[in-house]
Amino acid sequence: MTVRAAVAGASGYAGGEVLRLLLGHPDVRIGTLTAGQSAGMRLGQYQPHLLPLADRVLGDTTADELAGHDVVFLALPHGKSAKIAAELGEDTLVIDCGADHRLESAHAWLKWYGGDHAGTWPYGLPELPGGRDALKGTKRVAVPGCYPTVSSLALAPALANDLVEHEVVVVAVSGTSGAGKSLKPHLLGSEVMGSLSAYGVAGSHRHTPEITQNLSKAASSQVKVSFTPVLAPLPRGILATCSAALKPGRTLEDVLAAYAKAYDAEPFIHVLPSGTWPTTAAVLASNAVQLQVAVDPDVNRLVVVAAIDNLTKGTAGAAVQCMNVALGLPETAGLTTVGVAP
Amino acid sequence: MTVRAAVAGASGYAGGEVLRLLLGHPDVRIGTLTAGQSAGMRLGQYQPHLLPLADRVLGDTTADELAGHDVVFLALPHGKSAKIAAELGEDTLVIDCGADHRLESAHAWLKWYGGDHAGTWPYGLPELPGGRDALKGTKRVAVPGCYPTVSSLALAPALANDLVEHEVVVVAVSGTSGAGKSLKPHLLGSEVMGSLSAYGVAGSHRHTPEITQNLSKAASSQVKVSFTPVLAPLPRGILATCSAALKPGRTLEDVLAAYAKAYDAEPFIHVLPSGTWPTTAAVLASNAVQLQVAVDPDVNRLVVVAAIDNLTKGTAGAAVQCMNVALGLPETAGLTTVGVAP
Amino acid sequence: MTVRAAVAGASGYAGGEVLRLLLGHPDVRIGTLTAGQSAGMRLGQYQPHLLPLADRVLGDTTADELAGHDVVFLALPHGKSAKIAAELGEDTLVIDCGADHRLESAHAWLKWYGGDHAGTWPYGLPELPGGRDALKGTKRVAVPGCYPTVSSLALAPALANDLVEHEVVVVAVSGTSGAGKSLKPHLLGSEVMGSLSAYGVAGSHRHTPEITQNLSKAASSQVKVSFTPVLAPLPRGILATCSAALKPGRTLEDVLAAYAKAYDAEPFIHVLPSGTWPTTAAVLASNAVQLQVAVDPDVNRLVVVAAIDNLTKGTAGAAVQCMNVALGLPETAGLTTVGVAP
Amino acid sequence: MTVRAAVAGASGYAGGEVLRLLLGHPDVRIGTLTAGQSAGMRLGQYQPHLLPLADRVLGDTTADELAGHDVVFLALPHGKSAKIAAELGEDTLVIDCGADHRLESAHAWLKWYGGDHAGTWPYGLPELPGGRDALKGTKRVAVPGCYPTVSSLALAPALANDLVEHEVVVVAVSGTSGAGKSLKPHLLGSEVMGSLSAYGVAGSHRHTPEITQNLSKAASSQVKVSFTPVLAPLPRGILATCSAALKPGRTLEDVLAAYAKAYDAEPFIHVLPSGTWPTTAAVLASNAVQLQVAVDPDVNRLVVVAAIDNLTKGTAGAAVQCMNVALGLPETAGLTTVGVAP
Repeated sequence: MTVRAAVAGASGYAGGEVLRLLLGHPDVRIGTLTAGQSAGMRLGQYQPHLLPLADRVLGDTTADELAGHDVVFLALPHGKSAKIAAELGEDTLVIDCGADHRLESAHAWLKWYGGDHAGTWPYGLPELPGGRDALKGTKRVAVPGCYPTVSSLALAPALANDLVEHEVVVVAVSGTSGAGKSLKPHLLGSEVMGSLSAYGVAGSHRHTPEITQNLSKAASSQVKVSFTPVLAPLPRGILATCSAALKPGRTLEDVLAAYAKAYDAEPFIHVLPSGTWPTTAAVLASNAVQLQVAVDPDVNRLVVVAAIDNLTKGTAGAAVQCMNVALGLPETAGLTTVGVAP
Repeated sequence: MTVRAAVAGASGYAGGEVLRLLLGHPDVRIGTLTAGQSAGMRLGQYQPHLLPLADRVLGDTTADELAGHDVVFLALPHGKSAKIAAELGEDTLVIDCGADHRLESAHAWLKWYGGDHAGTWPYGLPELPGGRDALKGTKRVAVPGCYPTVSSLALAPALANDLVEHEVVVVAVSGTSGAGKSLKPHLLGSEVMGSLSAYGVAGSHRHTPEITQNLSKAASSQVKVSFTPVLAPLPRGILATCSAALKPGRTLEDVLAAYAKAYDAEPFIHVLPSGTWPTTAAVLASNAVQLQVAVDPDVNRLVVVAAIDNLTKGTAGAAVQCMNVALGLPETAGLTTVGVAP
Repeated sequence: MTVRAAVAGASGYAGGEVLRLLLGHPDVRIGTLTAGQSAGMRLGQYQPHLLPLADRVLGDTTADELAGHDVVFLALPHGKSAKIAAELGEDTLVIDCGADHRLESAHAWLKWYGGDHAGTWPYGLPELPGGRDALKGTKRVAVPGCYPTVSSLALAPALANDLVEHEVVVVAVSGTSGAGKSLKPHLLGSEVMGSLSAYGVAGSHRHTPEITQNLSKAASSQVKVSFTPVLAPLPRGILATCSAALKPGRTLEDVLAAYAKAYDAEPFIHVLPSGTWPTTAAVLASNAVQLQVAVDPDVNRLVVVAAIDNLTKGTAGAAVQCMNVALGLPETAGLTTVGVAP
Repeated sequence: MTVRAAVAGASGYAGGEVLRLLLGHPDVRIGTLTAGQSAGMRLGQYQPHLLPLADRVLGDTTADELAGHDVVFLALPHGKSAKIAAELGEDTLVIDCGADHRLESAHAWLKWYGGDHAGTWPYGLPELPGGRDALKGTKRVAVPGCYPTVSSLALAPALANDLVEHEVVVVAVSGTSGAGKSLKPHLLGSEVMGSLSAYGVAGSHRHTPEITQNLSKAASSQVKVSFTPVLAPLPRGILATCSAALKPGRTLEDVLAAYAKAYDAEPFIHVLPSGTWPTTAAVLASNAVQLQVAVDPDVNRLVVVAAIDNLTKGTAGAAVQCMNVALGLPETAGLTTVGVAP
């Protein structure tokens, strides 16, 4: 089986990472590549690391250009995907790396993004309870945000197994590529290198409602999420420190058992051996999630630290993984748990 | 008045930063410099940025070498300072950048550091309630740890004013110089750059009891501290995200008033204008603390983000500030709130 | 004597660095600050590290706003300074951090920058032969470019003393702040970190004619310059590797003698002890130049490696140093040879 | 065909990169892994990014442990490989990532490394003239040094086609992983980040004679090499700026033709389109070499800029490529020209 794939938004970071992975996918033939302002240019101008595609010319991001493929990856600014998906029709698998179809609540969409909600698509995190089944055979996938991916995977087993209270604190440190190629002063190299900064503090980051949605589902009841993202000087990687008060009577052993049950059979999620802690370097360019759990005895609090590559498992790797699940390909095809280090 | 100052441990990062500041101090003449294994070498070998002192030869770290100065800065591995201080006698101001005399509880010392407790010295954080008075005229100063400095300053006003519950969560992201020049594989540039890692998770970092001690004093009652340090790829800087549940009925206005009352007259602590958040670059090489507070309305939690330079306000700047207070010099002499950026 | 200073372009990197230094200058009172698009905003928005000036409001960059000061620093895009200087009149010391008045040849200006040449001002590199005298009492200073500063200081003594052939090769690795705050994709943190890139290769960088001008003057005859700048992932610093074939019969001893003669009395230039090599970290935020020379015996070639901070000695430090010389202040006032490290 | 491969020195950077590539090689089964001081430990302790091998236990680096494989990769300190290779016998393909068998001159070995020369093995740079043929069917490969790889590929076509004079200048900026995991102060993250430094200046780096050997062969006559390596703050990547005086009458067109002839059919070497310049990010974790050539008209000098990943094409990728050639596998098996960016 050869899957014909198109990528819209091929000049950006998410689109580039989708292409990097598809170039190594045994079952995919890369078709049309499109862009916004960069249409008409060679891909090599924007993605010099994708040498085999360097001479491809970028088309316009329209349904006409993208038609005729088995799968279309959308790596677009939010608000753009619903219309294109509708025009592509129900036979095309559309995988949206953007935010448009992640939230289930139109009210939340309005509050956090503004405007009309485009509807909810199956959520592309197979490792959440029920997540994989919802993706099999689907023609629409909403790829999760990078922070929600790592935070939800870090805390879902504890919440699903009634081990912690329903108020969690997440501080997630991220590389800069999560912000995309937008030309903002605070993303300049001179500003980023040698500096740490918090942003979207006190629940003001748009990923907060998505984390809340995922964790509340896992807990089968409302979960309060205090989420703070921190920008650090590296291109890729998120390290999330997630904690919650342990419920009375629960122990570290209960926690370890819950995470083993949830993740031992997962190909991409690895609970590290006792005493070792995750680093983002170890998951660089891979689809792996490395995590570790601990209980702080003095405050009786569960602390989970998890690392992903925000562009791979946090975006493009998840997109490819979901394509594999949706099309019935081996879930790990074209993906790896081997990172690039040092 | 000219203060004659000696520095023990001049070849390390803390000692080097003390010297960098003393070179700009109007009232200090730099005397003897000592080291451990580096004794007998030129300082320029270890601190090429301290050009005016490049040809100084390092002596042995003994009380004999260090005698005859008004102030002696100790930047030594823990366990070494009590004996030297005793030999230097009560007339010499001894400022210990190490951990030996920070904790008040011999039990806590035994648990976290091991061995006999060397006793408690006046704690070098003038901005804590009562902190400045305890330092005036003292001949002994225990310079706080870098994480305790930023965490305590971030949360003390909220706790002292009964605004938050007594369980706090601190996730502090740090540059690598806090670990000193120790030759450990995980501190190699190849390992550090492009990576984020957590360590000392779940209350296992030695700064935890010190943070707990400070915050419990501020709250006049026991505070539980969940502390996680994260290592990030930059040489200097700590950005701490500190949070606690707001007590019923307390508001952001109460919080802002408490922080204004605590810090408006402080020369080194700046609560930023609304909507701006601290970065470590803005405090690089300065003694400033930049912080911002917010209340997350959905979880009713106070979030305080604070930035310091771990080597300056986090270590050597605090040491010089304490010297100024102890000796009756202007508290800001030789120190600045101007950072080096970008 | 108190010098009243204004800074035009205060929101950029060069202007910010001028202000950082002026804040520590004992003889300067900082007056008007102006900007282009940022006029009307608080300085703290753009320069959060300059806390004492955070609440200053930026004016428009016009001669009217800038009038009434003893010295006006211009940190503007090229092409803007001649008109302002003319309007400020001959009584005001105008120090131009831009390129407008560096080149002596109108033809070279036309070729490299385009348009009419604004004329040549005294060149702000006191350490070049005759450089200091040309600046005493002047009312106009053209601050050198960062690459020309480090390259010219590295090679001038060898050329002035007839030790090397008149064809030199300079490869200078630079941090990103030299490019200013311009919002270009290749300057984004995600692009810069973890990458090295060459640009302006094969004599196409605008600093080439300025290096050529300086070195040809030093040699009293035309010098050919092969110059390649390389962008590296750090905010500040230039390390230049400069080489030229040794003339027959010349030795390392001749070289060392020439550099000692040229620089032993210079307060900011330090030829390092034999066997040690400069690093940019050692000169960070200082006005120092650290350099080392060697002769490669197998190819009979002189190699000089020199390090500066591109924003300090490479721009703003030079500007302040020139102000000091022009006004008869101590040349080192407000400047330091102490770097910030690690 | 399944190739059984062992790796000696599996805990280091070169060994880790060999394993990363072998994990993706379709024809290789990874057998024994050995180490020096780390023998007896889990590989996961040292290479947390190699998840599929995390539980492998490291054996001792002895011929007995390494016997029974088709190919043995040696990633050892220099001086160790000759004895092991002799004990492994002539039927085993031994690929030495170290320096022992690169130099042809026993005199040069003695001068640069000291001690007895272990002999010369076929040199693992297939893209040099005659390079590929020398590797077909061989049982011994000396993998080139990282600097010699990039420098030789950058200049060989110009020298082989008599386009430039036989005196070349190479300034190569490198990430830190080239220095391996050795615990030296100047390799600490705190020292490396935010700094640039030159080392091995003026022909004193051990890669100088290897570059000279390669380029002299390409030129069929002695070439003088002025080589300066510069350390920059990134883990991986080398950007080399290489230049030489153009011979009279030669033109850029001649140069372009020579490079096209040399490299158009090479799977890993890409001369970029006119006007684009290589970056190390574009080749990260790939076996690609990206290069660009230019002629500086004012100094009539050829400038070639080339980028590689020092651990991949500079070490482990070359090792795998040579294995492929030696064993008659497709040369590109297990290797890619797709980099990881941003």
